[in-house]
Amino acid sequence: MTRATRSRIAAVEITPVAFEDPPLLNVVGVHQPYALRAIVRVRTDSGSVGLGETYADETHLARLAAVAKAVVGTDVFDLNALWRATVDALGASTGGGGASFGGMLELGSAVATVYSPFEVACLDVQGRETGRPVSDLLGGAVRDTVPFSAYLFYKWARHPGRPDDDWGEALTPDQLVDQAKRMVTAYGFEAIKLKGGVLPPADEVEAMRALREAFPDHRLRIDPNGAWTVDTSVKVAAELADVIEYLEDPTPGIDGMAAVARETDLPLATNMCVIAFEHLEPAVRANAVGVVLSDHHLWGGLQRSRLLAGICDTFGLGLSMHSNSHLGISLAAMTHLAAATPNLTYACDTHYPWKTEDVVKPGVLDFVGGAVAVPTTPGLGVDLDEDALGALHEQYLSCGIRRREDTVYMQSVQPAFEPNTARW
Amino acid sequence: MTRATRSRIAAVEITPVAFEDPPLLNVVGVHQPYALRAIVRVRTDSGSVGLGETYADETHLARLAAVAKAVVGTDVFDLNALWRATVDALGASTGGGGASFGGMLELGSAVATVYSPFEVACLDVQGRETGRPVSDLLGGAVRDTVPFSAYLFYKWARHPGRPDDDWGEALTPDQLVDQAKRMVTAYGFEAIKLKGGVLPPADEVEAMRALREAFPDHRLRIDPNGAWTVDTSVKVAAELADVIEYLEDPTPGIDGMAAVARETDLPLATNMCVIAFEHLEPAVRANAVGVVLSDHHLWGGLQRSRLLAGICDTFGLGLSMHSNSHLGISLAAMTHLAAATPNLTYACDTHYPWKTEDVVKPGVLDFVGGAVAVPTTPGLGVDLDEDALGALHEQYLSCGIRRREDTVYMQSVQPAFEPNTARW
Repeated sequence: MTRATRSRIAAVEITPVAFEDPPLLNVVGVHQPYALRAIVRVRTDSGSVGLGETYADETHLARLAAVAKAVVGTDVFDLNALWRATVDALGASTGGGGASFGGMLELGSAVATVYSPFEVACLDVQGRETGRPVSDLLGGAVRDTVPFSAYLFYKWARHPGRPDDDWGEALTPDQLVDQAKRMVTAYGFEAIKLKGGVLPPADEVEAMRALREAFPDHRLRIDPNGAWTVDTSVKVAAELADVIEYLEDPTPGIDGMAAVARETDLPLATNMCVIAFEHLEPAVRANAVGVVLSDHHLWGGLQRSRLLAGICDTFGLGLSMHSNSHLGISLAAMTHLAAATPNLTYACDTHYPWKTEDVVKPGVLDFVGGAVAVPTTPGLGVDLDEDALGALHEQYLSCGIRRREDTVYMQSVQPAFEPNTARW
Repeated sequence: MTRATRSRIAAVEITPVAFEDPPLLNVVGVHQPYALRAIVRVRTDSGSVGLGETYADETHLARLAAVAKAVVGTDVFDLNALWRATVDALGASTGGGGASFGGMLELGSAVATVYSPFEVACLDVQGRETGRPVSDLLGGAVRDTVPFSAYLFYKWARHPGRPDDDWGEALTPDQLVDQAKRMVTAYGFEAIKLKGGVLPPADEVEAMRALREAFPDHRLRIDPNGAWTVDTSVKVAAELADVIEYLEDPTPGIDGMAAVARETDLPLATNMCVIAFEHLEPAVRANAVGVVLSDHHLWGGLQRSRLLAGICDTFGLGLSMHSNSHLGISLAAMTHLAAATPNLTYACDTHYPWKTEDVVKPGVLDFVGGAVAVPTTPGLGVDLDEDALGALHEQYLSCGIRRREDTVYMQSVQPAFEPNTARW
């Protein structure tokens, strides 16, 4: 009998980075001048290095550091042990706050979000050591390229005190259409999502109609992040029934979404009321949503995201994919996951076009026809640019931002701003 | 960039075998003198051989043969492609009959059962080629040994026209207790299941009470395979509430089980009304069952059984494991799966003690304290005994049995026998 191979975690390095981010508006405020991410490098006693990427609010960084110590000695295939080590390191009392949700999400537990980058890095090592792209470890790519969606934002022309950014102001339907045209021309997207919840609903409906006119064949979506009441949501759903493919989080909560769902045939999607496995049973029983937006950073890595996909398939729910501001390691992981998920039939969200800096070597994750080719080399298929990592870490150290605070930043400009959901 | 490894299926051999089986009684009749299984060997262009085991009714064998041709060229990691090849080879019109359920189960599709042994064989190759036990490929073993349950049967002393078998008659409580004592002494089981639905309910309740008296600390179960009405099920549940850990399939159908569940706190388990993913949503909505018995042969292999486990965990359902008459390849697969499934907290069913012949080399799958040690060598950890395989294939050719027909065989002895469920 041959002895089994082992490849144990010898050390983990966690490097916070900051990258420039435009003033993108949303229901809780506005993006700060820098977005934060943590780059996780898992080194094994077999000499391999695997990569992960996650949020970098300081609370989250402290949890990552605790887990980084706890997982030393764990075999990279033993994901059950990795999960247990995460649970044990975090303790029973740890809530899910502090993971860069900007105040938009409430999670009961931090385990899944903290576990995620370690799991992705272990899958990267698994792939590198077995000569398999990560998509193979997830059941095999069912598509060679993964379609993403253009992600439009209302935005200011500039961060206060800085020069205009490259994208300029977008506060009117015409400006949004210009933003969409530029993004679609550059990336080839065939789906377009608007981050709403910023202007009164009638203005956002008008913007969606302008997008429909300018892009008659594109699939369209709007996500007001729960900014509307049930009545407004029902009204907008009727108005946009022939315009959009799904309506994402019009109103907060499973009960609210269920109340809207009873009054419309338009599929309701969510990344707010179903963001952890414990939300699935109440959402299914209430018939609250038709589409779940997965997110491996939030749901505990790639294998648990496959479980989510299987649950959606089993319970007749559609599946799409959510994005926060992210860099190339996350894009690679999202692409492998989406490629290996047969029922992920919607174009995935991505903030990728909004960033101008990265930590991975270029050339792997280019968008053609709105889609990213699934890397076919072992592991995630991306390699760190050590110089870029160093520069973005220096930027983290010097930028002064230590957590995502969209509301605080907005109130520094508009002191009366309040991030109340269901406001309209 | 390193090129990815590929390991493609070059050929598949399917070998039907027959092994001696005692006259075990159940709701649809009695086990024939031989049980049939098909041994699947997947050979790759890289020179590896992976093993799978499944049913061997002739309808099932024909489907296996069609899929065996269709999967040539598929990479052993590309389970999504393996599934699609199975779907395509079987066509849309194929129902799920013919897979050796003895008339007890109705499946709407044959895809999952036909796919299963190919998937297990591919995982065996994956493990052999990466140096990993199959449990590693399923997320890592959370236990070193997997507890199984003693599986008691009412039985005749002999098959008609043959000498008494080694176990003798079991038609009374005392005889069942003797059977249990012998099995527990030999294997160390700490849980005991009785296959019921054979005698009137009062007799089977009496048997369970006798087992409780003889085994005060063992976990006990009874499975009448839907032989009872809802009213009888509720009555027996009350009588056995303090005796058994769960009541398996007392009555047929999701609606029937839900009606029983409303009247008892005893967990209801099933391997009859929830045997495919499409049964999960109606069962959850009806609150019909508390425990699902997984079975990788039925649910489409080991990865889909992990999905089932994740669904049970997410929706608050307990998880146990079902068995049909099987050989060592299946036992190895069941053991790896159970080891890597954290929420499989019940002892697994197995018919293993009832067989006297096998196709795998001995020494790997011994029972100690009622449990099987998880193989730690690459792949499933079992190797074929080519001589034994040849002998059991010869036995298949000569025995004359081509499908499982418990009812037909029973009626050859008791012409008036009718396999009606909910009879009592």
